Amino acid sequence: MSMNVLGYAALAAKEALVPHRFIRRDPRANDVVIQILYCGICHSDLHHVQNDWGRARYPLVPGHEIIGQVIGVGAEVSRFRPGDYVGVGCMVDSCQHCGACEQGLEQYCEEGATLTYNDVDRHDQMPTYGGYSEKIVVADRFVLKIPASLDLPGVAPLLCAGITTWSPLRHWQVGPGSKVAVVGLGGLGHMALKLAHALGAEVTLFTRSLGKEQDARRLGAHHVVVSTSDEQMGSVKGHFDLIIDTVPYVHDLKPYMPTLALNGTLVLVGYLGELDPVLNSTPLVMGRKSVAGSVIGGIAETQEMLDFCGQHDIISDVELIDIKNIDHAYQRMLSSDVKYRFVIDMASLQA
Amino acid sequence: MSMNVLGYAALAAKEALVPHRFIRRDPRANDVVIQILYCGICHSDLHHVQNDWGRARYPLVPGHEIIGQVIGVGAEVSRFRPGDYVGVGCMVDSCQHCGACEQGLEQYCEEGATLTYNDVDRHDQMPTYGGYSEKIVVADRFVLKIPASLDLPGVAPLLCAGITTWSPLRHWQVGPGSKVAVVGLGGLGHMALKLAHALGAEVTLFTRSLGKEQDARRLGAHHVVVSTSDEQMGSVKGHFDLIIDTVPYVHDLKPYMPTLALNGTLVLVGYLGELDPVLNSTPLVMGRKSVAGSVIGGIAETQEMLDFCGQHDIISDVELIDIKNIDHAYQRMLSSDVKYRFVIDMASLQA
Repeated sequence: MSMNVLGYAALAAKEALVPHRFIRRDPRANDVVIQILYCGICHSDLHHVQNDWGRARYPLVPGHEIIGQVIGVGAEVSRFRPGDYVGVGCMVDSCQHCGACEQGLEQYCEEGATLTYNDVDRHDQMPTYGGYSEKIVVADRFVLKIPASLDLPGVAPLLCAGITTWSPLRHWQVGPGSKVAVVGLGGLGHMALKLAHALGAEVTLFTRSLGKEQDARRLGAHHVVVSTSDEQMGSVKGHFDLIIDTVPYVHDLKPYMPTLALNGTLVLVGYLGELDPVLNSTPLVMGRKSVAGSVIGGIAETQEMLDFCGQHDIISDVELIDIKNIDHAYQRMLSSDVKYRFVIDMASLQA
Repeated sequence: MSMNVLGYAALAAKEALVPHRFIRRDPRANDVVIQILYCGICHSDLHHVQNDWGRARYPLVPGHEIIGQVIGVGAEVSRFRPGDYVGVGCMVDSCQHCGACEQGLEQYCEEGATLTYNDVDRHDQMPTYGGYSEKIVVADRFVLKIPASLDLPGVAPLLCAGITTWSPLRHWQVGPGSKVAVVGLGGLGHMALKLAHALGAEVTLFTRSLGKEQDARRLGAHHVVVSTSDEQMGSVKGHFDLIIDTVPYVHDLKPYMPTLALNGTLVLVGYLGELDPVLNSTPLVMGRKSVAGSVIGGIAETQEMLDFCGQHDIISDVELIDIKNIDHAYQRMLSSDVKYRFVIDMASLQA
């Protein structure tokens, strides 16, 4: 039953990804076997490949924005059948019994969710390998249904960039009348603009470069504010109910705090690390404001987001690439030269 | 109509408070004239007297935890009559038309609430003077009713220390089943313990000194955790829905972050300034946690708190002093030698 699968892997830190054959864990009765059609490229793929976080396990097959077609199901699986178009995001399992899992918030599983790659299966201790590959085996409750109306390559980034911005929009109850700002216009930021717009919010992009204005408006921003302009920042003083900060590196949050409304929240979704320079408590105390964080989203809300995207015809703006060009794509991603997400056409793996 | 009033004032920065006669603004048709019986001593009184925040206006009559008896009302006042026992807290007016005021959150008035002392009346531009004095004139909508059952001196600190902790308890929806921790056991902290306990929460005090355990339990804490003990801090990992941090000086928040539950909030109510050392976003992102702030409370929720205290027989633990001993009280307050709030017996002003 074990599957010998072709993918692209990093075999050691700092090395380029290369074609690599590996063994997938044996499917269980509740598993779905998926032929991968497309896989989005997330910044965190590169962080793992480079071992920036010091926890890479090699060989490492990245990829957690997976779109594919079901080619087999275990005996206990009733929600899926061969031929279904499905998605897999950042998680493939969780403990299923902690408080977080019971609330459908598997991303906050107290025992730690099982990640789609660079992790270990919690039942048979086999390594997990990601979506830069032919096939994947995933427990049915972590498999998402893809609305039939959507163009498949553009759906892939919804599984990470989409849900990472959807979850805070929903948790902080964004809807008609809400005033939402987005910091940073990359893979996450462009999805935040689209989703907040479709939820009925008034949407603003904070950017440091005026060159992004036209694109931001096309993606759903009603307003664009240049964050280095004191005048423009002053014009949105006390304005936003929610600021979704997608910037993936250390940056100063202080300029954004005065733009939050009473009870407003700035939520970090792209950066793990020290909040340097220091925050000041005064705007928090004098306006009951919050600085918060959020990571991806639960499986139920990921399905909710996919269904919402189906209803509102929302996909990610993507550039489809051949897997042999992965290193070039990584280089362009590092220089922000992508609008707004690379997606690997997995058919190229066989070429 | 102008009132010549005796009080205690700072006449210049760094000088001791001295008896001082001053003119109160003329009462208007919606005003209540109050004979002051008791006035609590808040840390911020001393900050103002010492001009620590650089905005003291002299002569400065401190005091914003005021309990008194109505001795006159304007023609338009129907809610109060002479003889009523009433309270006045940190604010005596606000714009009454901004979004915050319309929500009953006058403490966040967009134009700035008029503070009880060291401010300027927004109608006649007369200085405001606080409760270390015989009488005060306050617009009826900023005057609170005092439950008849409560011992008056112990009610005074509810007007600042009480509402400052009540407001976040209510905003973050603390009730039966909630797990609340309090950092710091002073004027604010001891009220946080009492109020959270009465709201039905499981209440924990974080402290650096074991000597406070017995008193903390008497005041309502179910548990006491020594914050310098890694073992004790580890035992409450992921535990608290809300941490109310009452510490009035810069301190490290990082040790408390792991003790927050999923979706938990640490709310700062006692400190204005830089959050040094820097926070780290990782616990925020990986647990959807928040760092927030909160200041006093609105007039409606202050009345709600007073009524709640009446029902639950809650007052502050106070030490009643003569006003001539005010400097000594300030010195003892600086060395945390008070359980838990000094209150001036204003009858001593006439002695």
